[in-house]
Amino acid sequence: MLIGNAIVGQSGGPTAAINATLAGVIRGAVESRAVNRIFGSFNGIEGILNRRFIELTHLSEEELKLLENTPAAALGSCRMKLPRPDDQSRADVYEKLLDFFRSNDIRYFFYIGGNDSMDTVAKLAAWLSDKDYEMRVIGVPKTIDNDVVGTDHTPGYGSAAKFIATSMQEILRDTAVYTIRAVTIVEIMGRDSGWLTAAAALPKKVCGVAPDLIYLPERPFEMERFLTDLEKAFAVHPNVVVAVSEGLRSADGTYIGEGAHSGRVDVFGHKYLAGTGRTLEMAVQSMYGCKVRSVELNLLQRCASHIASATDLREAVSVGKAAVEAAVSGETAKMMCFRRAPGRDYSVSIFPEDISRIANLIRSVPDEFITPDGTNVTDECIDYLLPLIQGEPDIVFENGLPKHLSLRK
Amino acid sequence: MLIGNAIVGQSGGPTAAINATLAGVIRGAVESRAVNRIFGSFNGIEGILNRRFIELTHLSEEELKLLENTPAAALGSCRMKLPRPDDQSRADVYEKLLDFFRSNDIRYFFYIGGNDSMDTVAKLAAWLSDKDYEMRVIGVPKTIDNDVVGTDHTPGYGSAAKFIATSMQEILRDTAVYTIRAVTIVEIMGRDSGWLTAAAALPKKVCGVAPDLIYLPERPFEMERFLTDLEKAFAVHPNVVVAVSEGLRSADGTYIGEGAHSGRVDVFGHKYLAGTGRTLEMAVQSMYGCKVRSVELNLLQRCASHIASATDLREAVSVGKAAVEAAVSGETAKMMCFRRAPGRDYSVSIFPEDISRIANLIRSVPDEFITPDGTNVTDECIDYLLPLIQGEPDIVFENGLPKHLSLRK
Repeated sequence: MLIGNAIVGQSGGPTAAINATLAGVIRGAVESRAVNRIFGSFNGIEGILNRRFIELTHLSEEELKLLENTPAAALGSCRMKLPRPDDQSRADVYEKLLDFFRSNDIRYFFYIGGNDSMDTVAKLAAWLSDKDYEMRVIGVPKTIDNDVVGTDHTPGYGSAAKFIATSMQEILRDTAVYTIRAVTIVEIMGRDSGWLTAAAALPKKVCGVAPDLIYLPERPFEMERFLTDLEKAFAVHPNVVVAVSEGLRSADGTYIGEGAHSGRVDVFGHKYLAGTGRTLEMAVQSMYGCKVRSVELNLLQRCASHIASATDLREAVSVGKAAVEAAVSGETAKMMCFRRAPGRDYSVSIFPEDISRIANLIRSVPDEFITPDGTNVTDECIDYLLPLIQGEPDIVFENGLPKHLSLRK
Repeated sequence: MLIGNAIVGQSGGPTAAINATLAGVIRGAVESRAVNRIFGSFNGIEGILNRRFIELTHLSEEELKLLENTPAAALGSCRMKLPRPDDQSRADVYEKLLDFFRSNDIRYFFYIGGNDSMDTVAKLAAWLSDKDYEMRVIGVPKTIDNDVVGTDHTPGYGSAAKFIATSMQEILRDTAVYTIRAVTIVEIMGRDSGWLTAAAALPKKVCGVAPDLIYLPERPFEMERFLTDLEKAFAVHPNVVVAVSEGLRSADGTYIGEGAHSGRVDVFGHKYLAGTGRTLEMAVQSMYGCKVRSVELNLLQRCASHIASATDLREAVSVGKAAVEAAVSGETAKMMCFRRAPGRDYSVSIFPEDISRIANLIRSVPDEFITPDGTNVTDECIDYLLPLIQGEPDIVFENGLPKHLSLRK
């Protein structure tokens, strides 16, 4: 058994469950005989490079519980991309990391993040593989986008989906109160995949109301057809609600919302989007002249822990603990994944998968989850999604607001 | 005692508590010996004119409970403005209303709404006053805006404030995860008053974090000073969060967000706004070149019943019941108001106030609630707000989503 200390970091965009996974890693480390002390690196891999970290071994049960219900990365995040492991001119970055690991007897490194963070796990594990220092590197997925390959779903998605479905149900009530013709366009996150937008359909199964039209980025978006789809929806009732992904693209690949922020990219080369709903709002306005409103669910999709899914948080803790167990049992260069058991009753098991088969890939919403006309999701999709939003966590309220845990002063 | 039937309508924008007030009116009517049957008019006063209504006398306790936790007007709403009572050329509208009241033995009319709805109550009561038909007309306030004169606060505000404070706390967690300089501008509803925006300060008292800057429409907004305020905020930490009211105006009275939708007005002559946050986002972007994001809390502010204030819902029920009691005891042309008892412990009493002293007036955030430099609210303001967001309602979840009641098939 490899005995030593462990360090955990968080990376990528916040979710409502990323701290539940952190709590799971801490719980797993504290319970394991192989791990002496567990540290947290502030701002992901940057904290190790800058020597900014905190010991987490002695958090109380009350603190761990609060941490599980605290949104956004309690250790902070980063968007830093490691250089290629074979780029000798940048080896100093890796040397600095190894120096920290050696001098603190760190034998286990856990990185909680999305697609881009798995890239960091893959590179670090690859670089360490031929070094004279035994160490285990494990990725633990989190992303509201649910677009990580190899796993049935990702921690964080269920809570985001529950917020989206709950908000959509409330917006459907809100928009139904007037009798005049009106279109409400709800823009939902998801640059490359439509998993989050698909969650807008969930109220249908639960209370019989749903958006009239749902457009995912998996299908090319045609403005003309959209306006025709709207015409059909008006024939049913005057208040039309449309759910759209921020990542909608035309057949030629240009983003529908590109006008507003064209040219801006983040460090991973992703285009910065903000205008899909607004673009459609203007198109509907000029075509129909009716009341149109676009609503961006925006940041709350990834941080609304007050309406988190208890299933999601429970699984997020489990996958953190499982990461420690897998590492202690000898796994490295792996990401922890969920496998859903077949059959009607929902249950998942957790297993490690080769990180090289996961990093930098995108898992899209499959064809059978989208209706043939591309304006909604199928019942099969809803059956997949529904178990992920079940249950409400016990949230501690103090003075009327949810209580959170701060790891930084 | 005036014995007969009652009818209730809802008007104006949705809130999370307007159906709790409806449930209160129904409860009060069912309990009163003076009221035989209670009806609900669909889409406010329009339902009476169009003869679209539903009997509510026999709702079960379970249905009433669900109704209390269902957002947005279950009876639908309208924005219809009654003609002036002394305009003889439009007397047909009033005659049509009276005809309905007479033929259905309606002796009590309750109208749940905001400022504009109290205008309807005032006009109808005035027109009826010299007619040969005894009837009582009572307004019950609701508005997330909290800007109704005569009452300590309005039902609906506490729940909206709780959603805003909770969301703000989560957004503060979310935006704190990165170390690069970034500005997040959260645009909050409130065309004429800053009550809703003030609620963004509540996390400060509860968990020590708060927006760095809060701008209410009660103070003229100066772009130059805003950019200087930001500079000071950057000196404290890189992630600056700003809460702004949609209704911010320059000293000359023009709305900051007017560019986007200038010229569009609703039937009451209110200007349609949508661009305050976006306008500031562009200004910050061009001045500082840093990451800037504007977030509109949008519709969820008025319909997020899943995070409603239990205090607000309880008071909303009470004020509905009290309206029936007041009407039965002889009151008419009144609006029900809250009076807060002096002293440390929060308690309110309910009383009827002359509608003529209320309709078409605006209650602004008072000077002592705003810091002298106009960039925040005072502790006195927070002390006023905090009791209104206390408590969490028992929400029935079904299949992972809050269960609502539909009054229409």
